[in-house]
Amino acid sequence: VCSQAQVLYDFAAEPGNNELTVREGETITITNKGIGGGWIEAQNSRGEVGLVPEDYIEVSQKALIMKRASNGNDPWSAWNADPSGGTSNNWASNPEGTQTGKSAADPWGNVSQGHPQAYQGPAAEDDEWDDEWDDMKSNAVYTESGEAGGIQRGGMHASSMKISLNKFPGFSKSGPELYLLCKQIAKGKDKLSIYVGEVGPVWSYPETQIDCIVADPKKGSKMYGLKSYIEYQITPNTTNRPVNHRYKHFDWLYERLLDKFGSAIPIPSLPDKQVTGRFEEEFIKMRMERLQGWMSRMCRHPVISGSDVFQLFLTYKDEKDWKTGKRKAEKDETVGVMIFTTIEPEAADLDPSEVEQKCEQFSKFTKAMDDSVKEILTVGNEHWKRCTGPLPKEYQRIGKALQNLSTVFTSSGYQGESTLTDALTAAGKTYEEIAQLVAEQPRKDLHFLMETNNEYKGLLGCFPDTIGVHKAAIDKVKEGDKLVAANKITTPDKVAMSKRLSTMSYTLQAEMNHFHSNRIYDYNRVMQQYLEEQVKFYETIAAKLKQAHGQFTTM
Amino acid sequence: VCSQAQVLYDFAAEPGNNELTVREGETITITNKGIGGGWIEAQNSRGEVGLVPEDYIEVSQKALIMKRASNGNDPWSAWNADPSGGTSNNWASNPEGTQTGKSAADPWGNVSQGHPQAYQGPAAEDDEWDDEWDDMKSNAVYTESGEAGGIQRGGMHASSMKISLNKFPGFSKSGPELYLLCKQIAKGKDKLSIYVGEVGPVWSYPETQIDCIVADPKKGSKMYGLKSYIEYQITPNTTNRPVNHRYKHFDWLYERLLDKFGSAIPIPSLPDKQVTGRFEEEFIKMRMERLQGWMSRMCRHPVISGSDVFQLFLTYKDEKDWKTGKRKAEKDETVGVMIFTTIEPEAADLDPSEVEQKCEQFSKFTKAMDDSVKEILTVGNEHWKRCTGPLPKEYQRIGKALQNLSTVFTSSGYQGESTLTDALTAAGKTYEEIAQLVAEQPRKDLHFLMETNNEYKGLLGCFPDTIGVHKAAIDKVKEGDKLVAANKITTPDKVAMSKRLSTMSYTLQAEMNHFHSNRIYDYNRVMQQYLEEQVKFYETIAAKLKQAHGQFTTM
Repeated sequence: VCSQAQVLYDFAAEPGNNELTVREGETITITNKGIGGGWIEAQNSRGEVGLVPEDYIEVSQKALIMKRASNGNDPWSAWNADPSGGTSNNWASNPEGTQTGKSAADPWGNVSQGHPQAYQGPAAEDDEWDDEWDDMKSNAVYTESGEAGGIQRGGMHASSMKISLNKFPGFSKSGPELYLLCKQIAKGKDKLSIYVGEVGPVWSYPETQIDCIVADPKKGSKMYGLKSYIEYQITPNTTNRPVNHRYKHFDWLYERLLDKFGSAIPIPSLPDKQVTGRFEEEFIKMRMERLQGWMSRMCRHPVISGSDVFQLFLTYKDEKDWKTGKRKAEKDETVGVMIFTTIEPEAADLDPSEVEQKCEQFSKFTKAMDDSVKEILTVGNEHWKRCTGPLPKEYQRIGKALQNLSTVFTSSGYQGESTLTDALTAAGKTYEEIAQLVAEQPRKDLHFLMETNNEYKGLLGCFPDTIGVHKAAIDKVKEGDKLVAANKITTPDKVAMSKRLSTMSYTLQAEMNHFHSNRIYDYNRVMQQYLEEQVKFYETIAAKLKQAHGQFTTM
Repeated sequence: VCSQAQVLYDFAAEPGNNELTVREGETITITNKGIGGGWIEAQNSRGEVGLVPEDYIEVSQKALIMKRASNGNDPWSAWNADPSGGTSNNWASNPEGTQTGKSAADPWGNVSQGHPQAYQGPAAEDDEWDDEWDDMKSNAVYTESGEAGGIQRGGMHASSMKISLNKFPGFSKSGPELYLLCKQIAKGKDKLSIYVGEVGPVWSYPETQIDCIVADPKKGSKMYGLKSYIEYQITPNTTNRPVNHRYKHFDWLYERLLDKFGSAIPIPSLPDKQVTGRFEEEFIKMRMERLQGWMSRMCRHPVISGSDVFQLFLTYKDEKDWKTGKRKAEKDETVGVMIFTTIEPEAADLDPSEVEQKCEQFSKFTKAMDDSVKEILTVGNEHWKRCTGPLPKEYQRIGKALQNLSTVFTSSGYQGESTLTDALTAAGKTYEEIAQLVAEQPRKDLHFLMETNNEYKGLLGCFPDTIGVHKAAIDKVKEGDKLVAANKITTPDKVAMSKRLSTMSYTLQAEMNHFHSNRIYDYNRVMQQYLEEQVKFYETIAAKLKQAHGQFTTM
């Protein structure tokens, strides 16, 4: 009973894609609702079976209800808090554990009828690795990450991140004492300064803000055309000279940054590999947009943007230069908690109790913001669904009903009512236009609000780890007297530990202040953009309706 | 599992109404969903049980789905086509049968939390009849109407209408031959002229259009205050002298008009008695609005507005005048098909084939318009539900999410972000305001579009009867030669029958042209009103968002 559906719009199947051509008004039988990606499998009256976009059909009331209940295929589902795992668990039970990568399903995928089969093309690209990196990516990655509770399976990215964290010494297992008790390595060149500014400790910012443009994706191929990949052009404003990188190069950069700075600076995950898109172009466009967002955020960070590995990525001169720099970066030993050895706060040492209080404050704030951001994503997701689903359908039906009435009136045989029937038709068409405006609007405004919040969700998801390192250091310093008494450390060691904890706290504070100033800018900007588009949207509708209104006349 | 619900807004129980006071955020258990009228029975955590407005709570997902599936308590449900009976059947299987009264549930009832018990107050008024009419309304009314298939039970009004139709001679059972074969009674004074105008046959319209204002409802009482009733003040523009009438007087007028003109002129039902309202004032306001609509439509009809009975209703001088006129009207014998004896078309007789063709055309048109009007009611009903239900809730949630984010940001401890947090709060509040605008808008525009279409649905529901009389007359005239051959009628009788059929056709055509010109005026007017309010609505939202936008700043 619940498998009948009405076709709302014409849909022409693309050859070789298992799609089914359907016509408006046709009744089809749904044979498989569980396809996903905005598609269902259906059979027409001639017995032909194939995929049809969900948005093009209206399933019977009963089927609709079942769909709603199962909440299938949200465009932003991956942006919602997942109570059964994922980032949210990180906060409670796994503060020192692994970072959790976001595995956001591509919103374009559902908005524009993401094809479950389409993404396999582009996704296949990511399975290829240059020979020199292939050995770094063994299947062991998956088993090693097996014990992490909060990790989302299937997200290859999350796994590789986990590896990185387990790999660097002093983190996770051995804790921050590696740094707290090490002999300070002080290379003058690599020193990272922290000043005390108006808002408190801040990083030393470069005079000119680095930025870059990610553009011009080009399809390349290797192995005589058997394998193809996408290469993006990245042009930094410093050199204005474009360099080319594939997704996997970004991934390499991400891992290097995570290794080197992850204990002190939250390094957000790259845009997920497993985005899907109806067309390869859409997939590429979406990935590029997110790579641009990620790169811009990295550029805005004074420590990251100034690092050798980041500069290499942006400005390498040739293949040889790239390979040399790459090898050097991979051999860098100042990784994990050892990054703190390079930090020099230009301020008095902090009392451990003050450190603890700051740490608590940041922990609370980032947790609260994480909740709030997830709420916005949930609500935005709901709104997106409504704006692209039932709402435009309703406006379309209003439009059709008015046009039908016009047609009936025209058939009256009564003279001189063409003004009314023309006006009714125009009003009907206006509501159909409004339907389209409503359906298209989320891409123009909600999209950016969602993207920004999604980015922040990713960023906030890194804080439990960063804060976890600090908490572990605080605990270690608290044990100081006990350790001295037990002859495990010397009194000078204890004093050094306290001083180093202070350095760690300055780092965390500088990082939080960096986060805050970026956050204020980002939310101001995205809200401005959102509201500007919303104003335009409502003004456009009002103008259209005003025009429709003008056609009616009471004599 | 499915009986838990969240309270969305505070609700204070009225004493003695079985209501339950609940607070926003409270969780309640639904103990009876089948109450109807926009109410559910629920139990709070203290074990207290009582009625709560459906709109004030959010039931769990599962319960919500069940509610949707059962489509319970639509605000406009009675305006939808009812496949199991009601007007729709009239067209197909019961063309000569009874008129079907609409039994529209009061939209205010659901919109403003109609109380299932509140309406018993006002409804009780209708059960009272002045002594002189009491005997006319026996319980037999209900049993007599028992055989009518399409009649909606429970609608007392439909029953009394049925009676009226069965009561007048020549209709339904005996058909139009009573007129076709009668001796023409020609009282010069009562003659109704039909002219041929630009658009075809038209009624003779009075020079000044009669109209009246229904206003100032007052509570009266009798039997030493034991029984109370509402009296409306009706002021016609002709005398400018107000007269008072109770609902039952309107009902008496309706029955007289139906008796006298029902075969020739569709007489729309009175607004239903069984409207419900949360408060008596709302109920009275709604009924008055609909009585006004009904009276205005009657005033606009040249034949009805000029009739003695209608003039009596509008302009009676005193109690004695009223009673005399009333008795006279009840004794009027020119009722049913005999109304055609008073009609004088000033044009050449029509050929029976032309009569048949016109009849077919009108039948088709009114059926098509009936379908179209019902489509608009269905779509409007859906839209009403969305605009007063999920949509404002969503805007409210967007508003709350933005305000929550503002609260979190305020807790950051970071200096100088009050501009952002103030702007976020303002934007959040703006979306809460939009939520309210959205929820209130249907009352400002959709309401009138629905009321007009509902009125037309009622009017169109009368056409099958009117057209049915004509079809029966056409069939009778077709039998003319056979009846002559069988010596049942004479040849002059046959000629007279054909002439009288022509008169009936002129009447139908004049009536259709009256209908068309009113329809064109009404739809122009209501669409103008609707679109004007829609424009205001979208402009208001745009202006509010523009203001919210202005508060954000990117330095």
